[in-house]
Amino acid sequence: MAEATPTFELFYWPTIQGRGEFVRLVFEEAGLPYVDVGRRPEGEGGGRAAILKLLEDDLAGMPPFAPPVLRVGPLRLAQTALICRYVAGKGGLLPPGEDDRWRADALMLTVMDMVVEAHDTHHPIAKSLYYEEQQAEALRRTPTFIALRIPKLMGYFERVLRTNAAGKGQALVGGALSYVDLALFQLVAGLSYALPRSMAAIAPRLPRVMALHAAVAARPRIAAYLASPRRLPFNDHGIFRHYPELDLPK
Amino acid sequence: MAEATPTFELFYWPTIQGRGEFVRLVFEEAGLPYVDVGRRPEGEGGGRAAILKLLEDDLAGMPPFAPPVLRVGPLRLAQTALICRYVAGKGGLLPPGEDDRWRADALMLTVMDMVVEAHDTHHPIAKSLYYEEQQAEALRRTPTFIALRIPKLMGYFERVLRTNAAGKGQALVGGALSYVDLALFQLVAGLSYALPRSMAAIAPRLPRVMALHAAVAARPRIAAYLASPRRLPFNDHGIFRHYPELDLPK
Repeated sequence: MAEATPTFELFYWPTIQGRGEFVRLVFEEAGLPYVDVGRRPEGEGGGRAAILKLLEDDLAGMPPFAPPVLRVGPLRLAQTALICRYVAGKGGLLPPGEDDRWRADALMLTVMDMVVEAHDTHHPIAKSLYYEEQQAEALRRTPTFIALRIPKLMGYFERVLRTNAAGKGQALVGGALSYVDLALFQLVAGLSYALPRSMAAIAPRLPRVMALHAAVAARPRIAAYLASPRRLPFNDHGIFRHYPELDLPK
Repeated sequence: MAEATPTFELFYWPTIQGRGEFVRLVFEEAGLPYVDVGRRPEGEGGGRAAILKLLEDDLAGMPPFAPPVLRVGPLRLAQTALICRYVAGKGGLLPPGEDDRWRADALMLTVMDMVVEAHDTHHPIAKSLYYEEQQAEALRRTPTFIALRIPKLMGYFERVLRTNAAGKGQALVGGALSYVDLALFQLVAGLSYALPRSMAAIAPRLPRVMALHAAVAARPRIAAYLASPRRLPFNDHGIFRHYPELDLPK
């Protein structure tokens, strides 16, 4: 008897792409069914209430720290990079070789490190304060992010694509798309929303990164997902926020 | 014929504990021999030069982003959490169950997230600037780190210890010490160096975390390591820095 596919339940805030989006992209590309619990009505066990309940339950084994959380059977798994890795393993989106899996995992963590840095451009002082309360510091932090960190980190991904001959520009690791390519797609998409002038200015120096972003967007399952109502639009409550005053001047 | 133990080479800056220290602790507790390349003399292929050479080599497969890097055969593995996980797998420091391994990995990433936050208390604007150039912002960021983030994150680890009955206060996950316990030890050690008054103030609310810290420090291999010259002292060039003006007032 074939093993039954487990039920994958994603718990994430219902109104932002945020970190949950990295997980959604892996499910979508893998074609694995998942329940996006936060986006179901509260009356049907969804919404923010379901997420808070999941986080507060101390009787179900180790509590997760924060959303996104994936629930699979008795496991409540937190940490975006790890959830993506887990789903990739179930959905055929890991590179085949063991060393290449470690390399993909390392890249995934580097993508997530840059996500933190992107978030902190508009929240350099505290998550607990509004942007407007730390705008002065954001106006100081973001220019060095644009001038130094985007070139360094995106330049690194460009270099990884350049050195991976097997990927033919379509994969950061190995010869076929893996979950980390989806994550780089989302990072580029988010930064392009948040800092469009900065990303347009650097794009000519990142031809491989930009080509990978376009190739991922054109994959049938990803294209269908991006055109569906399941893809929330970017907005200024998530990680990637478009505050024009933080971007390069016109 | 038994499989030969591979040579593990750790590449990390020679003058700070930094992120490399999380890796060293796993090697030390596992009793696995490793070469701390950065701390060998430059004339013997060590020092900063060896690290820079490793990072810049594009002919050896996917380049690592930043130190620490573990070199094992053809693999150059970056990302602290992942290196620790890798070494733990070789050294018997993973929990036995598959789900518990995912849980330990999630905790490890949460520890490393807090490491970034601890670093950014003194560098809220840019890694490329000196502390003195961002002290005003550090004086604004650190109080919310102390008032909100230490209680939230350390309170979370306390809760994990409380809910893990199998660990008897000696392990975050499962019934025996795993690599994530070593990481929490180092996080507590670092924060206690950087912000001693804040940590002393909150310690009574973190009895299990503090007991775990003490239990790890007392393990024979860790105690021997901490007393050896291999353990660099904390200083104000690493992640955890003691700037008294950032701590709670006396």
